[in-house]
Amino acid sequence: MGRDKGDKKSYELKTPKGTKDWDGKDMVIRDQIFSKITEVFKRHGAVTIDTPVFELKEILAGKYGEDSKLIYDLADQGGELCSLRYDLTVPFARWLAMNSSIQSIKRYHIAKVYRRDQPAMTKGRMREFYQCDFDIAGVYDPMLPDAEIIRITCEIFEALEWSGRYTIKINHRKILDGLFEVCGVPTEKLRPISSAVDKLDKSPWSEVRREMTEEKGLDPEVADRIGEYVVLSGGKDLLERSQKDEKLSARGLLERLQKDEKLSANASAKAGLDDMDLLFTYLETFEVLDRISFDLSLARGLDYYTGVIYEVITEGSRPQTSEEEDRSNDPSVGVGSVAAGGRYDGLVSMFSGKKDNLPCVGISFGVDRIFSITKQRRAADTSAAPIRLNEVDVFVMAFGSGLLTQRMQVAKRLWDAGIKAEFSWKAKPKLPQQFKAAEVNGVPWSVILGEDELAKGQCKIKQNGLSEDHPEKNGVLVEMKDLEAELFKRLGRKELGSLPESGVLLDGAKNGMNGLSLEEAAREAPKTG
Amino acid sequence: MGRDKGDKKSYELKTPKGTKDWDGKDMVIRDQIFSKITEVFKRHGAVTIDTPVFELKEILAGKYGEDSKLIYDLADQGGELCSLRYDLTVPFARWLAMNSSIQSIKRYHIAKVYRRDQPAMTKGRMREFYQCDFDIAGVYDPMLPDAEIIRITCEIFEALEWSGRYTIKINHRKILDGLFEVCGVPTEKLRPISSAVDKLDKSPWSEVRREMTEEKGLDPEVADRIGEYVVLSGGKDLLERSQKDEKLSARGLLERLQKDEKLSANASAKAGLDDMDLLFTYLETFEVLDRISFDLSLARGLDYYTGVIYEVITEGSRPQTSEEEDRSNDPSVGVGSVAAGGRYDGLVSMFSGKKDNLPCVGISFGVDRIFSITKQRRAADTSAAPIRLNEVDVFVMAFGSGLLTQRMQVAKRLWDAGIKAEFSWKAKPKLPQQFKAAEVNGVPWSVILGEDELAKGQCKIKQNGLSEDHPEKNGVLVEMKDLEAELFKRLGRKELGSLPESGVLLDGAKNGMNGLSLEEAAREAPKTG
Repeated sequence: MGRDKGDKKSYELKTPKGTKDWDGKDMVIRDQIFSKITEVFKRHGAVTIDTPVFELKEILAGKYGEDSKLIYDLADQGGELCSLRYDLTVPFARWLAMNSSIQSIKRYHIAKVYRRDQPAMTKGRMREFYQCDFDIAGVYDPMLPDAEIIRITCEIFEALEWSGRYTIKINHRKILDGLFEVCGVPTEKLRPISSAVDKLDKSPWSEVRREMTEEKGLDPEVADRIGEYVVLSGGKDLLERSQKDEKLSARGLLERLQKDEKLSANASAKAGLDDMDLLFTYLETFEVLDRISFDLSLARGLDYYTGVIYEVITEGSRPQTSEEEDRSNDPSVGVGSVAAGGRYDGLVSMFSGKKDNLPCVGISFGVDRIFSITKQRRAADTSAAPIRLNEVDVFVMAFGSGLLTQRMQVAKRLWDAGIKAEFSWKAKPKLPQQFKAAEVNGVPWSVILGEDELAKGQCKIKQNGLSEDHPEKNGVLVEMKDLEAELFKRLGRKELGSLPESGVLLDGAKNGMNGLSLEEAAREAPKTG
Repeated sequence: MGRDKGDKKSYELKTPKGTKDWDGKDMVIRDQIFSKITEVFKRHGAVTIDTPVFELKEILAGKYGEDSKLIYDLADQGGELCSLRYDLTVPFARWLAMNSSIQSIKRYHIAKVYRRDQPAMTKGRMREFYQCDFDIAGVYDPMLPDAEIIRITCEIFEALEWSGRYTIKINHRKILDGLFEVCGVPTEKLRPISSAVDKLDKSPWSEVRREMTEEKGLDPEVADRIGEYVVLSGGKDLLERSQKDEKLSARGLLERLQKDEKLSANASAKAGLDDMDLLFTYLETFEVLDRISFDLSLARGLDYYTGVIYEVITEGSRPQTSEEEDRSNDPSVGVGSVAAGGRYDGLVSMFSGKKDNLPCVGISFGVDRIFSITKQRRAADTSAAPIRLNEVDVFVMAFGSGLLTQRMQVAKRLWDAGIKAEFSWKAKPKLPQQFKAAEVNGVPWSVILGEDELAKGQCKIKQNGLSEDHPEKNGVLVEMKDLEAELFKRLGRKELGSLPESGVLLDGAKNGMNGLSLEEAAREAPKTG
């Protein structure tokens, strides 16, 4: 908190309510998550688009029901009325409607969205937070894009090293609708009853039944019939549910429902079950069926879903230690879920006004929640390597008289070779200060210059952090002319990725003016298996 | 443009004025630019921070002079009053003031900023646009961070392949102030006269002189004395200026000014000249002095600069073909410049209220303008490889009866191996359609499945786009079990980067269930030099 002195107005030095700065290790962890997720999307041929942070107010109007009150509006400063985007789905649908020549796309979008939560909220829910959406638009054969989205979801959580710690709960809107019809739910009560069912992940059936009958006026017999279905689930079971009396596989539950004569006779339920049958076949081919739980209590809040729906849950879905990350009222991510989505075949035509729908299926990853779980797990993992703030490979230092020009010349050679390098911005820094600077940032290697060594055309390369009794603790003498090659050898042994991917060398390096060129050095360096 | 039919309100389907969607090849080019710039920043040990898109209104107040009217405000919906960020410098200074434990940092930030330009503007200036800022905060020995910023700037434009096509104009606020004092400019006229000088890059001296004397009431003799100095420049000269009567090097001009007895006797000018002397020495060591032009007419608009100032210009700085990218009134980027910045030692204390300044030096890259120049040049370069929308390496296809399951199994194997792969989401696609899909996206390789080949445990790998008479035009038969290794061989020969950097494999691949594991395949593949 800072207050201006003197004649200036005083004010509090802070970010706006519900927003935060990302910096330090949090920023590094977040970037690693984004980069792993992006890598999976690209592996499946996705492209990204970027839409403005605000949309015309009327584009967002009527899309979020009663949550519309949470939309941030821009001030009316003349001209168009605009609002900050509330999610990434509506801008995507708007973009598709505007670009009608695009009949198919796989797009991802990682960006901030804005929700003006009630000022009374004490939970610290963020008002600016990241979403990471992947959607497939286009007319394809049934369930193929849907299956690939499930596969992509699995690849992402494997990439995040959550293997065995997540379950994809899956259901189908048409099965739910058919099931409610079969049980005798009046048409006008379909949505309220569906939303009551959606609470089964946090409330027992008895409580949900009470809501249906007492609050929503459902015939108790109808409620009991629903109860026979919605407690059913089959497949991977991460979070135990007390109501479950038998353990089915996802395929087992599907077969049981397919044998249910009342359900099979209902057109909607039949269509949903056929979809699920095909989907399960594809998921078996993709070897990810064992990661899903077919769960009849999954209903999802948003109205626009028309087919398969899913939510990803994890054992760490509800971290009680970090209140900030709670999104329990966030409609895009279900309670306790880290990703959620489904098929929405009618949304684009709401914008285009065309009768022909552009079918879509997608998923939204709750990256803020994924971040906080990842951070917790990393903190608990004592064997994990410490997180480095920057990626510097080499700290260039000198003992004695400072050797500023020489340190700068060496840093320049390393930058030319694509090696990440720093040196102290002091003319005559003390050696311990330089070691300290390297140590603080976890820089793995030092190049140490000394007048005597330089006179012989040599310098030292030292691996930082070696134990006192290590034979190379004081570094290894190398010829100055071989410096890049010697470093490539060491960096190559430790890690790939220290070579720049693109040709970003300065002229000096291209002309081979300074020791080895990158190409020569790369040839010199041993390959890693 | 779409209008809803029926009872819904009709509205125009568009993005808000001054904003745009980024998609297709533009998005790919932009991402490549961001990634090259980021790579250079990381090579120099920079970290990134991310601040909210809006700040408290009072944080921005009083920072932008008369341009404050361009700030976007959020509507008053109760609670704090907020505004969209206008640049990335003020949020950085606010962050530094809030985090007073941070005494030094090199940070970059690539993000959108918002300026509500006059609705009367017909130039199509964007209201939402990207800035890419790099700043160094901390107390260091003189000119060392400043020199590294110039070096970083050169590395970035080299990475963007602008070699030989850019010039860094450089000057020093203290030299300018001293020069004006020596010439006899009254203190109260320092800023107006400085801003008149700043126009010398688009107006002749006669016009600037007229403004000084007629509009700003400067004594004509004083103006003439200024005129003797500010037409001087030395060093790399990209854009010819008619007033220049002799060709000096940057060092040559510096020496001439150092010999100027009146200037040297002025404390401010002397301090600036000493700084420049040291800076030039460092730039020589970094081998980038030949890319700068010491230009006494460079003044920069923003008041907060206290030391060295610079602007990067290019032969394509003023593209007349694309009106959208014009930023001629953008104070963060000088007229015709693609990057600009300088030293600002007093800004952080405006927020912290502390007497001790945290000195800063930084540069802001006009990435929208860099984008439009890059795009123009790429379009003009007929030898350049076409821009691919996605990065898919392999399209998995089949002839005959569709072979959907087999195509899915192969795609899964490739994903497990980190190979970017797609297949048609049709159960029985026609072969020409599959080739077409691969061709449209420029996918370099196809894996072609056929029943006869599969029965023998084989499939074909085909390089797409081979000429009719190429011996491998119809593909090469390989053993199914060797598929990943065969593809690694071919992809490795063509490009690095198809191997995932992180361990993102599914269990199947880890267990070696499907042909070779990634590690085995990588060992099999020949290394590229």
